[in-house]
Amino acid sequence: GKIMYAVVMAGGSGTRFWPASRKSKPKQFLSITGKEPMVVETCNRLSPLASDEEIIIILGKHHKGEAEHLFQGRNVHILAEPVGRNTAPCIGLGALYAKYLGYEGPVAFLPADHYIRDQGGFISALRIAAQVAERGGIVTLGIIPTRPETGYGYIKREESTGEREYFAVSKFVEKPDFETARTYLAHGGYYWNAGIFVATPRTILQEMEIHLPNVYAGLMKINDSLGTDAFEKVFAEAYDEMESISFDYGIMEKTETSVYVVPCECGWSDVGSWAALYEMRSQEYDENGNLIEGESLVMDCRQCFVSSKSNRLVAVLGLENCVIVDTQDSILVADLNRSQEIRKIVEELKKLGKEKLL
Amino acid sequence: GKIMYAVVMAGGSGTRFWPASRKSKPKQFLSITGKEPMVVETCNRLSPLASDEEIIIILGKHHKGEAEHLFQGRNVHILAEPVGRNTAPCIGLGALYAKYLGYEGPVAFLPADHYIRDQGGFISALRIAAQVAERGGIVTLGIIPTRPETGYGYIKREESTGEREYFAVSKFVEKPDFETARTYLAHGGYYWNAGIFVATPRTILQEMEIHLPNVYAGLMKINDSLGTDAFEKVFAEAYDEMESISFDYGIMEKTETSVYVVPCECGWSDVGSWAALYEMRSQEYDENGNLIEGESLVMDCRQCFVSSKSNRLVAVLGLENCVIVDTQDSILVADLNRSQEIRKIVEELKKLGKEKLL
Repeated sequence: GKIMYAVVMAGGSGTRFWPASRKSKPKQFLSITGKEPMVVETCNRLSPLASDEEIIIILGKHHKGEAEHLFQGRNVHILAEPVGRNTAPCIGLGALYAKYLGYEGPVAFLPADHYIRDQGGFISALRIAAQVAERGGIVTLGIIPTRPETGYGYIKREESTGEREYFAVSKFVEKPDFETARTYLAHGGYYWNAGIFVATPRTILQEMEIHLPNVYAGLMKINDSLGTDAFEKVFAEAYDEMESISFDYGIMEKTETSVYVVPCECGWSDVGSWAALYEMRSQEYDENGNLIEGESLVMDCRQCFVSSKSNRLVAVLGLENCVIVDTQDSILVADLNRSQEIRKIVEELKKLGKEKLL
Repeated sequence: GKIMYAVVMAGGSGTRFWPASRKSKPKQFLSITGKEPMVVETCNRLSPLASDEEIIIILGKHHKGEAEHLFQGRNVHILAEPVGRNTAPCIGLGALYAKYLGYEGPVAFLPADHYIRDQGGFISALRIAAQVAERGGIVTLGIIPTRPETGYGYIKREESTGEREYFAVSKFVEKPDFETARTYLAHGGYYWNAGIFVATPRTILQEMEIHLPNVYAGLMKINDSLGTDAFEKVFAEAYDEMESISFDYGIMEKTETSVYVVPCECGWSDVGSWAALYEMRSQEYDENGNLIEGESLVMDCRQCFVSSKSNRLVAVLGLENCVIVDTQDSILVADLNRSQEIRKIVEELKKLGKEKLL
């Protein structure tokens, strides 16, 4: 045993990286931030705190095979949700499973598809969070903002003098407009909510019982079946009946337990779009700010992201701020600043019945 | 026999439409302006004036097979130049061959890779040109300009009062700058030089003898071998030794014979770039000015030209004035306004030794 358990939430469907990401291969299974798929990098990053057998990966049933393949020969636990029910049931399930494995200490719950540049800063923050969580309450990582970002929710800490390793949380705030985000940045004491929580299984399950009785009831049914032949069937039925709700909305906004934030400076990104990925990988830019992967010929372009994962040549001439992603069966060409809207393309493909391209 | 013979010049290498055009399939063999390859449309368009057996297609030896395939079952004459030597030798060869076929009347010499929207206007002009050429001299078609185009050479007619069917030519002028082109348009009496000439074989060969004695000597060697076993060998040797020079430069700028211009309004375009092709096909635009071919999903785009000739889906989001051409082994994404520079890509590919993609 090392310092803590970790529940890696890998259930996302990830349409934002189409055509690289597909139903069968969502973002957390792509090697877009480094050599390994994001879910593998997420687990590897935890190694100073949790060994493989202390990691529980929760994902959708369609991706179980892929994950088992990626983690071949490693002792991580892989749990496949019969159906997606958002983060609250997933975190509840993780807590339950850690408890089932005989563990009662602090557990980190974290998304499988985030990027962290500075592992050291991240691990330090988690270590502090584990110490705090051991004494009770829910601890969040608060990413120290570096720009007035309007795409993230924020965590406001209690007013406090002096620098400390953690703070009580004053409130969670929704994605702000630009002016508000600027105020947060200038004011200080506001952190990006990365959706990373640390708490003991006992705390999580108590909170579920109080605020999400439907989810809690389902979890208890699953709990009773763990280790029995009925498990698969009960798991499927209980999940099917469970409310689909986020942990932020279902627990964090309602909880009356202590909530803390550990400020963290670690080069975090949720890698929410091609544009975010492009920003993140600035060290790979050519002299014109182009990020180029695979076989391509990029002439007189600026700030373009060109990714060729097919065996074709991609030739680009005279463009600025575009993202071009070539795969075997599809190619995306888009304004990089509008890469948030790529889900529109996926929706349209769905409407057109192009199942093979999803 | 109909009205005239026609020499269709199909020897161009056409790098401007990469990746649709290749060494093995230059522009005149592409079906980009209609259902048929341009060389076929060029021949078909002539049918009111010249039947198939009155058409001589001259092309590079590497494209002979393709042409024979396209004109299977048709009696057009196909002559393959052993090596490209620009338009003067080609026109000389055409004249020679028409004479060899026993013809002494007017011959139209025209590029195989131009587009003409209004066949009627074109045929009327050629008919007049044939009547004029029969009496001697060289007749050019002068396209009535519709905009101050700087990409074409111009033909200035002699000052003249009143409208007539043809005029003596005052001079040929090189591609003008924008201000000069505007003056031409405002002044009137200036026409675009489409590189379409009409003259008898006798006139052409006389002019060659006077102004291009080297070319003429080669043509005479070929002439002596026509119909003999020595033809192929003599043809290859004579062409190899021949000067490579354009008809405009070698003959038209120097001739002292009569030169006429027949004004022509026929929706002509030399289709010199993806942008020119886009402009030309305005009747196919969607409501946002996009021209879309093949399987693609174009969202929030304006004035884009998207051509998918592969079996892949091309998805485009939020772009303006771009050309996207997808083929089996290559894809082009470029600023439509810079499509003149696509030859740069081809040059670069050549440098990189990517012969297969040329």
